[in-house]
Amino acid sequence: MGKEFLTVKSREEVEKLIRSLPALGTETVKVVEAIGRIVAEEICAVEAVPHFARATMDGYAVRARDVFGASESLPALLRIIGSVEMGRAPDFSIGPYEAAEIATGGMLPDGADAVVMVEHTERVDEDVIEVYRPVAPGQNVLGVGEDIPAGKTVMGPGARLRPQDIGMLAAVGVTEIKVYRRPRVAVVSTGDEIVPPDTPSPLPPAVIRDINAYVLSGFAEMAGAVPGVMAHVVDDPRELIDTCRSFIEDHDVVLVSGGSSVGVRDYTLEVFEAITDGQVLVHGVAIRPGKPTIFGSGRGKYLWGLPGQPASAAMVMVALVCPFLLQIQGRSPEFPFCRSVLKGFLTKNVPSVHGREDYIPVVILPEKTDEGFVRVEPLFGRSGMISTLSEADGYIVIPEHVEGLYEDEEVKVYLL
Amino acid sequence: MGKEFLTVKSREEVEKLIRSLPALGTETVKVVEAIGRIVAEEICAVEAVPHFARATMDGYAVRARDVFGASESLPALLRIIGSVEMGRAPDFSIGPYEAAEIATGGMLPDGADAVVMVEHTERVDEDVIEVYRPVAPGQNVLGVGEDIPAGKTVMGPGARLRPQDIGMLAAVGVTEIKVYRRPRVAVVSTGDEIVPPDTPSPLPPAVIRDINAYVLSGFAEMAGAVPGVMAHVVDDPRELIDTCRSFIEDHDVVLVSGGSSVGVRDYTLEVFEAITDGQVLVHGVAIRPGKPTIFGSGRGKYLWGLPGQPASAAMVMVALVCPFLLQIQGRSPEFPFCRSVLKGFLTKNVPSVHGREDYIPVVILPEKTDEGFVRVEPLFGRSGMISTLSEADGYIVIPEHVEGLYEDEEVKVYLL
Repeated sequence: MGKEFLTVKSREEVEKLIRSLPALGTETVKVVEAIGRIVAEEICAVEAVPHFARATMDGYAVRARDVFGASESLPALLRIIGSVEMGRAPDFSIGPYEAAEIATGGMLPDGADAVVMVEHTERVDEDVIEVYRPVAPGQNVLGVGEDIPAGKTVMGPGARLRPQDIGMLAAVGVTEIKVYRRPRVAVVSTGDEIVPPDTPSPLPPAVIRDINAYVLSGFAEMAGAVPGVMAHVVDDPRELIDTCRSFIEDHDVVLVSGGSSVGVRDYTLEVFEAITDGQVLVHGVAIRPGKPTIFGSGRGKYLWGLPGQPASAAMVMVALVCPFLLQIQGRSPEFPFCRSVLKGFLTKNVPSVHGREDYIPVVILPEKTDEGFVRVEPLFGRSGMISTLSEADGYIVIPEHVEGLYEDEEVKVYLL
Repeated sequence: MGKEFLTVKSREEVEKLIRSLPALGTETVKVVEAIGRIVAEEICAVEAVPHFARATMDGYAVRARDVFGASESLPALLRIIGSVEMGRAPDFSIGPYEAAEIATGGMLPDGADAVVMVEHTERVDEDVIEVYRPVAPGQNVLGVGEDIPAGKTVMGPGARLRPQDIGMLAAVGVTEIKVYRRPRVAVVSTGDEIVPPDTPSPLPPAVIRDINAYVLSGFAEMAGAVPGVMAHVVDDPRELIDTCRSFIEDHDVVLVSGGSSVGVRDYTLEVFEAITDGQVLVHGVAIRPGKPTIFGSGRGKYLWGLPGQPASAAMVMVALVCPFLLQIQGRSPEFPFCRSVLKGFLTKNVPSVHGREDYIPVVILPEKTDEGFVRVEPLFGRSGMISTLSEADGYIVIPEHVEGLYEDEEVKVYLL
């Protein structure tokens, strides 16, 4: 609240700091359970895929030169000498003017170099087919290593595993993979006025249910973290220190909400200094909401102090904490965190102040502009309201050196 | 492959069919574990949030009329009669020219109707403050029900729970919620040439590792389903029927890949008719890849038959099966399934054929157009290649009645 020791950093400075943090460490997991995880090693194909020439159509394995110039009026005549069994190497080879039945995925016999599609043939009798179209060598065939050459690097550190990547790993026989560890995140809500969410109605006067533990834990999960314990402590520095000390033992990150403003009950900084041995890296960020944000680190563990107001705490999560959680999982994060980005046009002026970045929740209106773009309505909720954030489809960011945006101005909407 | 009994449906017809399917059923889960789940009931606030007038700033609770016209040169003088304790109802009330210390979140004493920010005051002595600015009634106060009025519907069926919604539920004291059940999905890969992914190198000739089980299971998980068993069966109708019969008992959906083309080993249709008592709803869809897709249903269970080629099977997943999985979770799905959509411009002509929808994997190039849009490179992989799909950033769709797209044409990229 303006006191001098709050030396506020710009959002860019905090981003730079976050980007310099190392990944937590690695673990080896089953590939089939690794969707969404970040690869921490280089994977090479030890053998070619496929490791034999495969038919990509149902038809006949042939020598392309034997059907050169074949047509409806002048078909090529070939003798059937066998049938390729799926999953077995043929025990015969194709000589001049010979062919063999083959199904998609079958292994080409020696001598054959192409597959004629069954639609372009006619069976004359048990042993003979007519071929009505020519094929080029290699046609309807996937050659050795044509999909993945032997020795090729199929995946490297930093890649995020999608279902199709899992398939690629299966193809090269990799069933376990080294990935970056997911951070375990504990959440502590502070405040004498906070009661657990399961406190039945009617609530006693002057208290509110804890919202931040659920919201912050949920965002952490969306950023790939493993939600850990959630707890509430009253405004007592001793109790907060003890709780944080105990949680940091089996978690990588502790998020503390409330008490980070330089208000009447500011204990968080004191606690951070106690826990992290003075390694408070950030105390104050030039963003709104979220100015009183605190970030500290020690012994490979991290503490964040977030505002107590749920909407403010959530915005700091998307602006800084979620990108931080991605960074320590070995991922190069986007700032701010979002599900996706959409272009739209503002329905109203949005005032801001030079020297800080503003995060404004917005609603996407159902009617679009004449050009088909979405119309973006800023939500100017009172601070402390949770309904504003729940109504919002996403948020916009007003850069530090801009004093506001105008109606009809183009904006990027970060969807939540 | 052109045989007459393959009566191909358009993608729109299949979409319409999928949209008519009911949700699987509901279950009650803890709110804190419900991120991403689809709400199946209406939730009303049983009491107002907040249920008392709360300060939204640190400062002094006052009667607005007592500081009317206050300024630096003519401050209002107020007597401090107490301090509001967080979490407790004040046991005093504010009379004329009286004030009480209050912190953000504190309960306004009776009589007070506004909060003066601490920055706009000066303490004259222990009992008296000077106020330098006027406040309006209600200023820096969140009134009863201003966030969520009592009785308001805060969430309805079909909503997908985001972290901020979880917070909203916490605020109104809802800790358990009825959501739609997630489908359990089993995946069966068929083919005599398939061996398990953990088969060590070097592979015997003519066989390939099972890719589809991992890929299809991964996509199902991305669409909110619970991955169940994965199995491989050889091309034997008896074994396929037995496997599907046993899996359908404790799964909602069985995906069978391979064998759905009218090729030399087409058993899938036979199996589907055996399992679903003839309720084959779809046999053939006018999409490429994916024409031989089969979809059947019986006794509230579902079977899909997908192509054996991994890239084709994956495309049918995004075009039809993932939207289907969302539909039976009570969500109104987008067709096709994707992470997000991006506008871009093609680097090459893409041929297509009138009368079917084409799904083409694409890569987003690093250099953008002069207008800042992405350049989109189609990947024309040979069928049967897994590397094409793993290299792809997403895919484009060429509509049924379009015969191809031109270089520099604008396209929507569905990101995976």
